Parts: sequence; C-alpha cells; structure tokens
Amino acid sequence: MRHLMSPLDFSVEELDKLLDLANDIEKYPEKYAHACAGKKLATLFYEPSTRTRLSHEAAMLNLGGSVLGFSSADSSSAAKGESVSDTIRTVACYADIVAMRHPKEGAPMVAAAHSSIPIINAGDGGHQHPTQTLTDLLTIRSLKGRLGNLTIGLCGDLKFGRTVHSLIQALVRYDNLNFVLISPEELRLPTYIRHDVLRRNHVPYKEVVRMEEALPELDILYMTRVQKERFFNEEDYVRMKDFYILDKKKMELAGKDMLVLHPLPRVNEISVEVDDDPRAVYFKQAKYGVYVRMALILTLLGIHVD
Amino acid sequence: MRHLMSPLDFSVEELDKLLDLANDIEKYPEKYAHACAGKKLATLFYEPSTRTRLSHEAAMLNLGGSVLGFSSADSSSAAKGESVSDTIRTVACYADIVAMRHPKEGAPMVAAAHSSIPIINAGDGGHQHPTQTLTDLLTIRSLKGRLGNLTIGLCGDLKFGRTVHSLIQALVRYDNLNFVLISPEELRLPTYIRHDVLRRNHVPYKEVVRMEEALPELDILYMTRVQKERFFNEEDYVRMKDFYILDKKKMELAGKDMLVLHPLPRVNEISVEVDDDPRAVYFKQAKYGVYVRMALILTLLGIHVD
Amino acid sequence: MRHLMSPLDFSVEELDKLLDLANDIEKYPEKYAHACAGKKLATLFYEPSTRTRLSHEAAMLNLGGSVLGFSSADSSSAAKGESVSDTIRTVACYADIVAMRHPKEGAPMVAAAHSSIPIINAGDGGHQHPTQTLTDLLTIRSLKGRLGNLTIGLCGDLKFGRTVHSLIQALVRYDNLNFVLISPEELRLPTYIRHDVLRRNHVPYKEVVRMEEALPELDILYMTRVQKERFFNEEDYVRMKDFYILDKKKMELAGKDMLVLHPLPRVNEISVEVDDDPRAVYFKQAKYGVYVRMALILTLLGIHVD
Repeated sequence: MRHLMSPLDFSVEELDKLLDLANDIEKYPEKYAHACAGKKLATLFYEPSTRTRLSHEAAMLNLGGSVLGFSSADSSSAAKGESVSDTIRTVACYADIVAMRHPKEGAPMVAAAHSSIPIINAGDGGHQHPTQTLTDLLTIRSLKGRLGNLTIGLCGDLKFGRTVHSLIQALVRYDNLNFVLISPEELRLPTYIRHDVLRRNHVPYKEVVRMEEALPELDILYMTRVQKERFFNEEDYVRMKDFYILDKKKMELAGKDMLVLHPLPRVNEISVEVDDDPRAVYFKQAKYGVYVRMALILTLLGIHVD
Repeated sequence: MRHLMSPLDFSVEELDKLLDLANDIEKYPEKYAHACAGKKLATLFYEPSTRTRLSHEAAMLNLGGSVLGFSSADSSSAAKGESVSDTIRTVACYADIVAMRHPKEGAPMVAAAHSSIPIINAGDGGHQHPTQTLTDLLTIRSLKGRLGNLTIGLCGDLKFGRTVHSLIQALVRYDNLNFVLISPEELRLPTYIRHDVLRRNHVPYKEVVRMEEALPELDILYMTRVQKERFFNEEDYVRMKDFYILDKKKMELAGKDMLVLHPLPRVNEISVEVDDDPRAVYFKQAKYGVYVRMALILTLLGIHVD
Repeated sequence: MRHLMSPLDFSVEELDKLLDLANDIEKYPEKYAHACAGKKLATLFYEPSTRTRLSHEAAMLNLGGSVLGFSSADSSSAAKGESVSDTIRTVACYADIVAMRHPKEGAPMVAAAHSSIPIINAGDGGHQHPTQTLTDLLTIRSLKGRLGNLTIGLCGDLKFGRTVHSLIQALVRYDNLNFVLISPEELRLPTYIRHDVLRRNHVPYKEVVRMEEALPELDILYMTRVQKERFFNEEDYVRMKDFYILDKKKMELAGKDMLVLHPLPRVNEISVEVDDDPRAVYFKQAKYGVYVRMALILTLLGIHVD
C-alpha cells in the first residue's frame, strides 16, 4: 500500500504511467464509471478548501464510488482532543481511501504512518500540495505534449507559494528546461530552492522583476497571487503591483502558443479580459485536476481497468 | 442549455409540461430511479438553508445521481476572495448541474452568465426563490386539479415575503383568479405588485386585515410568517398578532375543500392543532417540492425518460 | 415501524438476531452491498460528532444507499426557530431513515413521536447513545463468544459517562455477570444504577479506586475518560489521575484474554504503547460499530436479505 505525501513520491516512470492513465480517463470516461463501485473516499478537511475537496469528491463519484467526511475542523473529533493518528485509525474502519487537508505541516505524514488505507495529502499548511502539482503536470503534458524542452515563467509570490516550489521540484527531473522567475525582490524564490534544486540539477534560470521582460520567450506562464501584506511597504506595493497583473495588453507580448496556468482561486492577478484568450487554460486545468485525481485514486487503491 | 433564475422563466406551456412530469414521477418513481446515473449535482449554499438544500439533494439522489457541495459560505473559496463567476466555472468541471443559494440578489444570474452547466437559483437574498414557487404550483394543481378558477388568500407578511410575490407573478398567467390579501397595514403587498402585476393583468383582489373575514370564501390559504420586528410598534404587534395565527377555531370558518399551504419553516403562525386537519397540506407540499425538483433537474439536463 | 431510542428497545431475543445479522454482514459483506439501493439516510446532527456521523454514513453507503443531512446546528433550520417535530416531518419527505444527534435530552423521542420514518437516536445530551451500546455488545459477543459469564471492569468517569450506564443496563439482562467499578470517589456510579439496576437484578459488583486492584480478574476492561474538571480539587486530580491511565505496565497485570474496549475518542487514558497489544480492541470496536449500524438500518427498514 502507498500514500501520496509529496509530489516527488512518484518516480518519473510512475508519473508517466499516472498521467497516461489520466489521459485515458479523459478520453474514455465511461470505461472508468464503475471502477470504484463500493469504495468510499473520506475527505478529512481540517481547514476549508472547497475547490480541493470538491475535486477529490468529483473524482471519486466519477469512478462510481461514494464520499463521506467533513469540511472544517469545527465538526471533527479534533475538538475533543483526539490525535490525528487515532482519527485515521477510526476512519480506516469507515472508508477505503482518505484525502486529508490539515493546517499543520506534516499532519498527513503522521496519519499515513498509522493508516491501513491510502492517504492523499490534500495540502498541509505551507508545506506540500501534491495533487495540485500533479494537476499542473498533467495540464502541461496534455496541452504541450511534453514536460521537457520548455521555458517556464513562474510569476508572483515565489517566496511563500508552495505550489510553485512543488512544481519546480517535480519539473527539474525532466530535460532541457529553462525557468524565468518573475517576482518582486521581497518575494524571490528562496535560496534553498534556487541553489539546492535548480543549480544542483543544472537547470538554467533567470530572475526578472517585470512580467513584460519575460513574456516573449515563455512556453508556459504559471501565475500566482501577490498579496499586499507580503510587501515591505505600501510604496513598493503601489509601484509594483501592476507588474504582476496579467492583462490583454501584456498577452500581446507573448507567443501564440504560450499557455497561462493558475492554481486558482484567482483574485485580480489575471484580468478577466484574458479569460477568453485560447492561451488561458486555467479553467481547463481545473478539469485536468479531476482526471489526475481519478488516476491517483485508482493507482493508490491498486485498481486496474482494462 | 437553460437555467432557472425566476419563476417566470418557464412559459405556461413549459410549466404545464414540467408539472406533468412531476406528477408522472410521483406516480412511477421507479421509472426515474436511474435517470441521472453518473450525473452530479453541486449544491453551492453561500448561506445555510437546510430544507432547500436537502430537497434538491433528495431529488438528485432519487434520480440515481450523486451530490457534492457546501452548506455555508465559511467553507467556500468565497472567503479567499474568489468571484462567483470563477467559482462556477470551476464547479462546472466537477458537476453537471448546480443549485445555488446566495445572500446577494442576482448572484445566481452572474453565475448563469458564465456557466457551461445549468444553474438553479435556490434563493438569492430577498429576490427570488423559484423552486418554492414551482413547489407551490405543483401542490395546488395536484390537489385542486387546476391553477385557474381559484380564490386564493395570501396571509401574513406580504411586504417582504418573496415567496408570496413570486407566487402571485406565476399565478396571474392563469384565468379566473381572485386574490384576498390578508395582512396588517404595515405589511401590505407592495404597490408595484398590486398595480403592475395584479391590476395590469386585470386580476381582482381585495385587502383585509383579519383572517376571519377572508376564510369562508377561500379555495387556498397561503400562510406566511409575521415577524415581530416588522411591526412599527409593540402595541400594534400585540393587538394584531392573533389575526395571523391560524388555529382550529378559525379553520371552522373555512370551507371543507380549502387547502392550507405554507412554505415552511413555520414558527407559530399555524397552531400545531391544525396539523391533523386534512385541509392542512404543508407537509405534503414538502413532498411535492422533491417531485418538482426532480422534474426540474431532468428538464434542465435535457434528460427524457420513456 | 420502529425506532431506536434506548439500548433497551430491543429484547434479548431481538438483540441476538440483530447481532447475528451484524456478524453475517461482517462475514459476507457483498451479500448486503445493494440491500438499501434507492434508500436514503438523513444524518441530522444538531451538534457535531464526526465519528458517530461517519459510522452511520459508512453503514448506509456499505448497503448501497445514499446519505444527506447536516453536521452541525448552524446550518440547520433550527436557527429559524423550527421545532424538531416539524423538521422531522419535512425530512421524512426527503429520506427513508434518520440518524439524529441532539444536545437536548429527549429530542429524538419528540422526533420519533411525529415521524413516519424510523429514527435512530445517535446521542441526546447526556442521556442515551444506544448505537454505542450496540457496538459494545457486538464487540464483546464477537470476540468473547458470549455476553454472559463475564467479569467486566468499567473504569474512569462512571458518574457522568452515559456509555457506561447504557452498557450496564443492557448487560444485566444476561446471566452470570460480575462488575468491577473502577473510579475515584467523586465519579462513582450513581446510586440509582447501583441500586435500581445492579442490585435489583442481583448482579454482583464491587467498587475499587485503583485499576491495578481489578485487572487480574477481568475478562473485559471498558475504559472511559476522566476529565480534570470533574474532580473536586486539583490535589485529588494529581494524586489519582494515574490510577485511570492504562499503560503497558498495568497490562502486565491483566490476563492474556482480557479485552480492552473504549468508546473513543481517547485522549490520554490509554497510553499509545498499549495499541499494539492484541488485547487492545478499541479500533476493532470502531469496525464493529459499522457492522452493527448496518444491521440496525436493515432491521428498522424491515429489509431482509437471503
């Protein structure tokens, strides 16, 4: 039995198989419509995350399984002082697989250590969010046809954005990648990722402050939110915030095949006028999020469909 | 593709078809037990409304479909600042049809404008609550055999009660109706409905202050709650509140075929001693609420059962 | 039609049949996988209790039925002032069976009095929690082979612990039982249970203050939590709290066939080092909780599977 704790849990070969399965599901959904009949997914969300919860639930329902769980800690036994490991041992009596979201880093790992059923880490604090990374990888591979030979711009809050960190760690295992890191000075990618992940893997990257400088050369633009509170002072925020808002005018600088991804929810960092641009694929990305979670559930449960 | 935003979205002919379908579902539930197999309803309730949410969920489950969603805004992405239109575009990746409840008037219309799947307005602020109106119409037509040729008493808070406003607008399209508006002066039906809806459609009505005056002539008594806070002063409330409480004694003034409806929940405006009276049909009404929502889901999804 | 309000609702013969059914379900789950197809369970939880709610939901899903409901009072109509009896009459339009949890003692009885569908009392204040008792009985009978001829230690807060009271009342109907009541003076079993239940049924019992004194002779050790707030003074608490914490060392005093049960959630009254001891069956107990609720749902719905 295995769990999904980090986006690096799967080797490149395993990941390829998982994404192949997701593409097969996209193509032939009826083939999988009863694959999990009689199986139950428990969604244990110790903090609310509607999108992540619903995408796991939709995945299980699409496979013919059913769902139970809770959507916030208030309605859980945690309030009575129960440990995560006790909760998971009990829930293992009720369900076949768990998707757990927890505000504390490492909580899903504690759960996995005591669990007799597979656990999916659906986000633990600022630490990991591996199903988002799988979603990003499937989106890129499906729409670009490859995960190597790409120039990838990562834009916004690169300091605290865990989706960006996870995506970089997953991507450096592929060949011929170039990263363009687009962020204000205050929100640069942390040194340990630049040095220990990018340099150590000999992956070329450059850092720029304005999106405009990067757009012409990108195959992928991965957008994230820049929160006002993250700036050192109001002046800097006012001066720079437009650098990180993607609009129609900036899209004119990009190549005709550049794809725009965003983990969602978006606030204002992508202007709604961009939504109709065929290069804007962030809502398609949400769809891929369901396919990849269907593939993940099947894989962790060891269910094969011919 | 179509949505249900207002009770007037359906023409009289379409409405007839919908109610016919609901009656067929009531008669032959097994025929429809798998009609929505593999389909998913998302219940997006930005404010709690247990009754409305559960009746939609029961409808979808009765059709063999499944359900996902949230029951209050706390556990939704709204907290992160996401727009309703972004939420709906994402949820369209997870579900086939949406029932949305929102405290802001017009929110479901915004959702519908951006949605690739049908949206049911399950109540938007004080504005519309069209599935309640469909429920009321099905109840009257099923138990009276007609929607025209009726004298209909509407009792209680006619000023703020949106179910009453919607019901009037839906009913004036039928022939030979008479309305008796029973309310305190402070809570009279708004002028725009009396003039623009009733007079313009040449529908006769009269206004009375006490329920007793109206009861003998009614075919239908539609009860609603009168909240104390709505009165101008304590004195008026004390003096008049009993005028709007239906009890066994008042029921003696009514004809033997008069039906009592109530959108529920009731607080004390109908005494529980009335519950056993065969003319009290407010709990039957809740049952019709499920049938009509089943018919609605099938209709909006374009699913035909032979 | 019948409800489950108290653990004594079933006669000894009926209970035997119910537990037999639960054991058959454990043995042949596939036989029951579609027994409740098309049936709906409503979980009406006016206060959160994740474990109890999920175990009922898992039970219904295992039977091929589906689930709807609410997990806390905030999202229910109770906030609008609706009575429990009105809620239940409405929910009876949406579901086939109800599991109700309520902070007020007797609320499920009020519901049952007005309900046209079976109600399961899933806990009402400090009063009853009959499905926990059924779970305890099934666990003991399945693992010991009998409900009579046992020496049963009940440890912890015997004054306020409703699971202990219910378990005693259910067990005294069997032959040849011995109880050892292990608690601090402040938290002794109430007089009415010692006199009216134990003595009246001629069931021998003794009371001890320290767990060590009781362990060697027990067939069953039923653990419950001792909350600090329940002690009269801090000194007593500090002096005695270790008497009621089960650890590896204390387990050495017990016989090799003694079983340790706990209704869960546990806080610290059983040290985690005991979890791997084969005599620790509290997580197995959670599994039996699902089987017994499956048997209960089938029994109350009058569904027979051959």
